[in-house]
Amino acid sequence: MRNLPSPQMAARLLACVRERRPRVHCLMNTVVQKFTADGITVVGGIPSMTSSREEIADFVAKADALTVNLGTLDAEHRAVILRAVEVANAGGKPWILDPVHCDYSPSRLAFARDLIALGPTIVRGNRAEMELIGETGACLRIQTGPVDHLADGRATVRIANGHRWMAAVTGTGCLSGGVIAAFMAVEKDPLNAAAGALAVTGVAAECAARNAAGPGTFGVALLDALSALGEAELVSHARIEHDQG
Amino acid sequence: MRNLPSPQMAARLLACVRERRPRVHCLMNTVVQKFTADGITVVGGIPSMTSSREEIADFVAKADALTVNLGTLDAEHRAVILRAVEVANAGGKPWILDPVHCDYSPSRLAFARDLIALGPTIVRGNRAEMELIGETGACLRIQTGPVDHLADGRATVRIANGHRWMAAVTGTGCLSGGVIAAFMAVEKDPLNAAAGALAVTGVAAECAARNAAGPGTFGVALLDALSALGEAELVSHARIEHDQG
Amino acid sequence: MRNLPSPQMAARLLACVRERRPRVHCLMNTVVQKFTADGITVVGGIPSMTSSREEIADFVAKADALTVNLGTLDAEHRAVILRAVEVANAGGKPWILDPVHCDYSPSRLAFARDLIALGPTIVRGNRAEMELIGETGACLRIQTGPVDHLADGRATVRIANGHRWMAAVTGTGCLSGGVIAAFMAVEKDPLNAAAGALAVTGVAAECAARNAAGPGTFGVALLDALSALGEAELVSHARIEHDQG
Repeated sequence: MRNLPSPQMAARLLACVRERRPRVHCLMNTVVQKFTADGITVVGGIPSMTSSREEIADFVAKADALTVNLGTLDAEHRAVILRAVEVANAGGKPWILDPVHCDYSPSRLAFARDLIALGPTIVRGNRAEMELIGETGACLRIQTGPVDHLADGRATVRIANGHRWMAAVTGTGCLSGGVIAAFMAVEKDPLNAAAGALAVTGVAAECAARNAAGPGTFGVALLDALSALGEAELVSHARIEHDQG
Repeated sequence: MRNLPSPQMAARLLACVRERRPRVHCLMNTVVQKFTADGITVVGGIPSMTSSREEIADFVAKADALTVNLGTLDAEHRAVILRAVEVANAGGKPWILDPVHCDYSPSRLAFARDLIALGPTIVRGNRAEMELIGETGACLRIQTGPVDHLADGRATVRIANGHRWMAAVTGTGCLSGGVIAAFMAVEKDPLNAAAGALAVTGVAAECAARNAAGPGTFGVALLDALSALGEAELVSHARIEHDQG
Repeated sequence: MRNLPSPQMAARLLACVRERRPRVHCLMNTVVQKFTADGITVVGGIPSMTSSREEIADFVAKADALTVNLGTLDAEHRAVILRAVEVANAGGKPWILDPVHCDYSPSRLAFARDLIALGPTIVRGNRAEMELIGETGACLRIQTGPVDHLADGRATVRIANGHRWMAAVTGTGCLSGGVIAAFMAVEKDPLNAAAGALAVTGVAAECAARNAAGPGTFGVALLDALSALGEAELVSHARIEHDQG
């Protein structure tokens, strides 16, 4: 029988990330590179961000998981992404695709679909993005929003944590993609990894909001909260709901 | 008779931006992309930042206003800017040019002048930049500093808000360019839009300074203050002075 | 006899940077451009960040010191770095090399060695990076960590300031490279400049930690502390130890 996500499992995975310090390589839009790197670091991972054609294979080969984010996408970056995915797939490393703003540009949407054909472990987007993406085959689908919806064809999970200020800070979604990658590095079932990572991020956001006066201080307090989040606090606040598929 | 900028008008425009949520596309230097995106978001707009040749037309076509910032400029970025301006002009969309550091590089200055020939709605720079730029034709000129000077050939306006820590935080000028773009999306007269946006940014900076211990916390508190700024507070603190030209 | 670094000297150099406002050009990875620019600004310098082939010579010619950081390195960026170093060397301007993550990629390590052959004033890295780099010829070597080790072949200096949260904030090392460059612009002996800059950054980090609740607020408070750091506080807290070589 399948072991479905729970607050206790989220806490166990967070402890694993903190102990094992997985390396996460990020092909991240230039807008939120530091915010995402900081988020991965404070949750316990070790981020790297390079995106040069000459070096990408070396960096992905050293990473435990990969996040591919399509913000600020150009021709060079596309080539680098394809090479990174090739190396990740060859090494059996999990990778998450974040098709940011694919609803703005047909060429970006087409590229997102090409990448989905290469078998990401997870695709994560907001509602507009995921509706456009359509079928994703075997990978775990995540639609983030006030409630996050996860579905892998066998089970569906909802995470009902978070705070409205997340939408007022550029890059909280990208950061959570990086945190999911860190969790995938320590947990084989993508549904468990992603549910744990999103519960951690969502509960940390709730803590952060209590220490913030607005979206600016919230973004900073989110890093503090991710760093300080206790397992007991996570277990008591995580709202993970599921239906066997 | 022309309706000149006033604190009440600034408050009305801020309410409009918060209600209509204009899309602002930013061709922004890579240094301050997140800070600018956060500033646009907390004031009520929806930012996008991509700068790839393949996608720029799609993004500008979906935007209500465009900001063109010349920091971290390379050949590819120049081509993208020219394409973005072409799409903005064809669609009658307002755009603001921020010729950052054109006083450091003759080739950047020459490119800034080429762009001015394409008819930006507004050119904004600091004193050194604006003096070098020289004639700007029909567009609104803004010289920002301890007091901001706006002139469109018919009227001149001064905004005497702000705080000295703005100069100690990289990107406050770029952020204000993004906020101006958001205001241009809801107000046809560039003088009114820019005066409103600069009063909002300046009064928010004054609020932020009261909640900050130095330039670091000030930069963060500025985002809180832009998000929370009340219309009454804006009206009572905005210092907008003008002479009919 | 050689005048070796001391807390008093660090305070004198900080006063010089604040008074003379040196220009520091940064060829910086895209991840931490704003954080580094803010750090240079609050310590008293004037940063610039452009990295285009057409403009780099103009920017370096106007700068008083240069920092070359190898994060997010691609072919274009390599060409720009070589041109920047050529202009710096021709103008007798000091430059610091930060071979970020050269332990991840053989091609990056090879490029770092090519740059070392061009005679940087300082090479700064963490332990893994500096061990791989090996011989560096005549330049000052700095290995940063809980204790920073400086060695120029004649003397060795240790700086025992700082805080563990520095390792949890992406870019504190890059920021300190920018601060070192600002200090090199006002002090000819690289050992003195770097010791002063690292003492300033380390003592500021200790102050910041007292005003922070975690790595997020620490990163912001570090900018406040660098801006506010008093000479008396620096002198009483700087831990600069040395052995004549």
